[in-house]
Amino acid sequence: MATNKLLSLLLLIIVSIITTSSVVSQPSITPSFRRAPRFPGKFSHNHNFKQQYRYETRYFSQRLDHFSFSSDLPSFPQRYLINTEHWVGPSRLGPIFLYCGNEGDIEWFAANTGFVWEIAPKFGAMVLFPEHRYYGESMPYGSREEAYKNGTTLSFLTAEQALADFAVLITDLKRNFSAEACPVVLFGGSYGGMLASWMRLKYPHIAIGALASSAPILQFEDIVPPETFYNIVSNSFRRESTTCFNTIKESWDVLNSEGQKHNGLQQLTKTFRLCRELRSAEDLANWLDSAYSFLAMVNYPYPSEFLMPLPGHPIREVCRKIDDSPDGGGILERIFKGVSVYYNYTGNVDCFQLDDDPHGMNGWNWQACTEMIMPMSSSHDTSMFPTYDFNYSSYQDDCWKAFRVMPMPRWITTEFGGHDIKTILKMFGSNIIFSNGLLDPWSGGSVLQNISDSIVALVTEEGAHHVDLRAALPGDPDWLIEQRTTETKLIDGWIQNYYLAKKTTFNI
Amino acid sequence: MATNKLLSLLLLIIVSIITTSSVVSQPSITPSFRRAPRFPGKFSHNHNFKQQYRYETRYFSQRLDHFSFSSDLPSFPQRYLINTEHWVGPSRLGPIFLYCGNEGDIEWFAANTGFVWEIAPKFGAMVLFPEHRYYGESMPYGSREEAYKNGTTLSFLTAEQALADFAVLITDLKRNFSAEACPVVLFGGSYGGMLASWMRLKYPHIAIGALASSAPILQFEDIVPPETFYNIVSNSFRRESTTCFNTIKESWDVLNSEGQKHNGLQQLTKTFRLCRELRSAEDLANWLDSAYSFLAMVNYPYPSEFLMPLPGHPIREVCRKIDDSPDGGGILERIFKGVSVYYNYTGNVDCFQLDDDPHGMNGWNWQACTEMIMPMSSSHDTSMFPTYDFNYSSYQDDCWKAFRVMPMPRWITTEFGGHDIKTILKMFGSNIIFSNGLLDPWSGGSVLQNISDSIVALVTEEGAHHVDLRAALPGDPDWLIEQRTTETKLIDGWIQNYYLAKKTTFNI
Repeated sequence: MATNKLLSLLLLIIVSIITTSSVVSQPSITPSFRRAPRFPGKFSHNHNFKQQYRYETRYFSQRLDHFSFSSDLPSFPQRYLINTEHWVGPSRLGPIFLYCGNEGDIEWFAANTGFVWEIAPKFGAMVLFPEHRYYGESMPYGSREEAYKNGTTLSFLTAEQALADFAVLITDLKRNFSAEACPVVLFGGSYGGMLASWMRLKYPHIAIGALASSAPILQFEDIVPPETFYNIVSNSFRRESTTCFNTIKESWDVLNSEGQKHNGLQQLTKTFRLCRELRSAEDLANWLDSAYSFLAMVNYPYPSEFLMPLPGHPIREVCRKIDDSPDGGGILERIFKGVSVYYNYTGNVDCFQLDDDPHGMNGWNWQACTEMIMPMSSSHDTSMFPTYDFNYSSYQDDCWKAFRVMPMPRWITTEFGGHDIKTILKMFGSNIIFSNGLLDPWSGGSVLQNISDSIVALVTEEGAHHVDLRAALPGDPDWLIEQRTTETKLIDGWIQNYYLAKKTTFNI
Repeated sequence: MATNKLLSLLLLIIVSIITTSSVVSQPSITPSFRRAPRFPGKFSHNHNFKQQYRYETRYFSQRLDHFSFSSDLPSFPQRYLINTEHWVGPSRLGPIFLYCGNEGDIEWFAANTGFVWEIAPKFGAMVLFPEHRYYGESMPYGSREEAYKNGTTLSFLTAEQALADFAVLITDLKRNFSAEACPVVLFGGSYGGMLASWMRLKYPHIAIGALASSAPILQFEDIVPPETFYNIVSNSFRRESTTCFNTIKESWDVLNSEGQKHNGLQQLTKTFRLCRELRSAEDLANWLDSAYSFLAMVNYPYPSEFLMPLPGHPIREVCRKIDDSPDGGGILERIFKGVSVYYNYTGNVDCFQLDDDPHGMNGWNWQACTEMIMPMSSSHDTSMFPTYDFNYSSYQDDCWKAFRVMPMPRWITTEFGGHDIKTILKMFGSNIIFSNGLLDPWSGGSVLQNISDSIVALVTEEGAHHVDLRAALPGDPDWLIEQRTTETKLIDGWIQNYYLAKKTTFNI
């Protein structure tokens, strides 16, 4: 297509100065809108979630830069949650279950990772939830404001530093508990799952295995086709209803023409009950894109409040609204009813704010502008989204404008690998579970095939974003119960093998 | 023993301001002297070596800090040597042999690593010798002077950054050669061997295997007894001559009493033909310690000029001088004759400079004061050296005085492992050869037992410091020829397995 102006989500928030009135040149072209990798972490600070798990909250002083020896950098307190009540202790080599905190408040992840809490007692395991630096309360430079001041203060917000934080913390804790010989098992979902798998690869001396759930470690460079994510989102809608899929697919053009009309933006503002007048159709398109993408992630078979309060099978519900408009209604009205399931399931919202992230310069945007460059395109042929191609050069420009930083799009694969992962991990490494649900748009960037006896892929047809890590519920489908049982058995196998290896090796 | 004042070698050079007149309190105690891990790299800039291998010299622009995104740091040119004349190219998946440059001028390492050059043509391999940052010509900030200005400019001189340099360089080179699928094999000796084994562990997607020769990756914290190094040096002398061993063992007391006499330092200056008057017996003791330690490392069966011009079996020669003093001579006179084999085998030296490192603030001293804390003690009972215990607190003080930096003695094992390595690597990893000669004092801190089918230890009774990496010579003993044949076979096995894996895996 002629215009490949691709703006990342970060612009939505940060660079409101830049008014990118990207009017498209051909009538058939749907609006280009802003897009960046969407991870759930940004919801973590909006929630008044109920914490049903018990833990102590502690803080550990971390070096800001583990990989250089500048003496003028301050240390910072890393928050971590710890529960030792079921731990059988060092003498019995009690395991340590460590969830790799990702891009948000660690208490929110703890509340949404019931699996770890539920299996820990069976294993006699300690539970640890260390927070990721620059998120939640784990702020360098004394405050969020100072930490997020500019590219210099943010420069230590990287995955490598976060992994080193985990490594230093667990090493210190083990020493304090005289638990040096206790096996550590890593858990993580989404970006946290990426961290868990990378940590197993980079720190095999620290953790004996990792359950990496919905971890798109291959969503970099050209490893998977850039359309993957939006194709999966689209499939998750199409499988519920072809008409729903088609309505959404047609809606972008309608939205775009509407926006170009005289008073069109005003009309759209009204139709979508926005709190403030719309400045471009693009902003609205991006808001809809967000809803569809996140819906595909949390398309759980039961009601959840992970991102938003939602019914079970939320896409089914959205499509019902879109398909079943009693009065027929215009296409945009039907779209509005559909996304209201996502944005307003409780019915308490009077009007909608497009800017759904209150924290301007957010951490994931920084990460997306430095290391986490996950090219995202979409094709109108294969998806319900408008066609556009990821344009690295404008992505780079936007990052420069936002943070004065140059992205390093090849760094992650240099540091952690990704290309030809099957050959590499077949010859090296062990004890990683890559679990994925095929409803989850992130599954396309993850590992979906077994690599070796101990690096395995658990794939469920009906699963969404790291559903296996969530607490067990009475109505859980059989496939989910079975998946969790398999995971528990594999983890048990790692631990038993470790005990065996400890017995049979001699000191050298 | 009462005094455990342990000063590191770095003080010898840097802090000449601090006059540590450590007079020992009991007559039986030999002088404490300055000591730090002794690696050969510091000799690299003293040599006018003949380069017998052909290569091109190129430079690659590297980020100064791979693990943060500060935009205000300059990049620097990393030098590397490259030879592609025997490489069979990308279409035939020609291997790439990469020597992990260590603490010195890369041309010097290239000249002393004949093994890589000699086997490359048989494998149709490209040869690469990238230089380690902050050594040779690979200077950040434009010059050695600027790079070594202070702790801030030096702060990026770390093993992790050096490994990332190698990773980035090789990834870029492979892309340029369309050689992404070509297997990389790592080589390294001494600290370079540590880097090679760590690189294989940390970057399995970049290199399929590593030959880590004389790599003391376990010489940290309490993994091996701190007396190990000096016990091995001593054994290398005792096996040649018990009287020689005993003479050296007795000499420290004599040296110490002599130094305490009126005009004693003057007399010692004369006996040891020093260019400048001795300031303390300790300085002289340290000079002798250096000679014995380095002699044990390069105790090769043939003449070499790796560190100094030396005869074959140099310790035998040293001991002959110490034992065979025709006129009987004083004990210190005999010691002098002995170490003259090391310091003056050519007979061209008129007087000796104790400060044998012309470059004050040298890179290895910085590394020893930040990450590379290798505790070194010695026992008069088990060695020919005076007893003393590694004292971390004074080590730390010295580092602070020298560089205003706090050492992180536990960081290396946190980042790279080391404790319980047998269990860890048995469960994880593959394709590493740890080769060691038991005459080499660094062998005690290395891996001396097979860990798994593909992580193997090759140990030779008669080998010294990475002798296997040196060029083949007509007079090479059988065990050395055999060792190199085994290494070549193992490397060939890695490459063949890789080719097989490439064929049988499918893309995911």
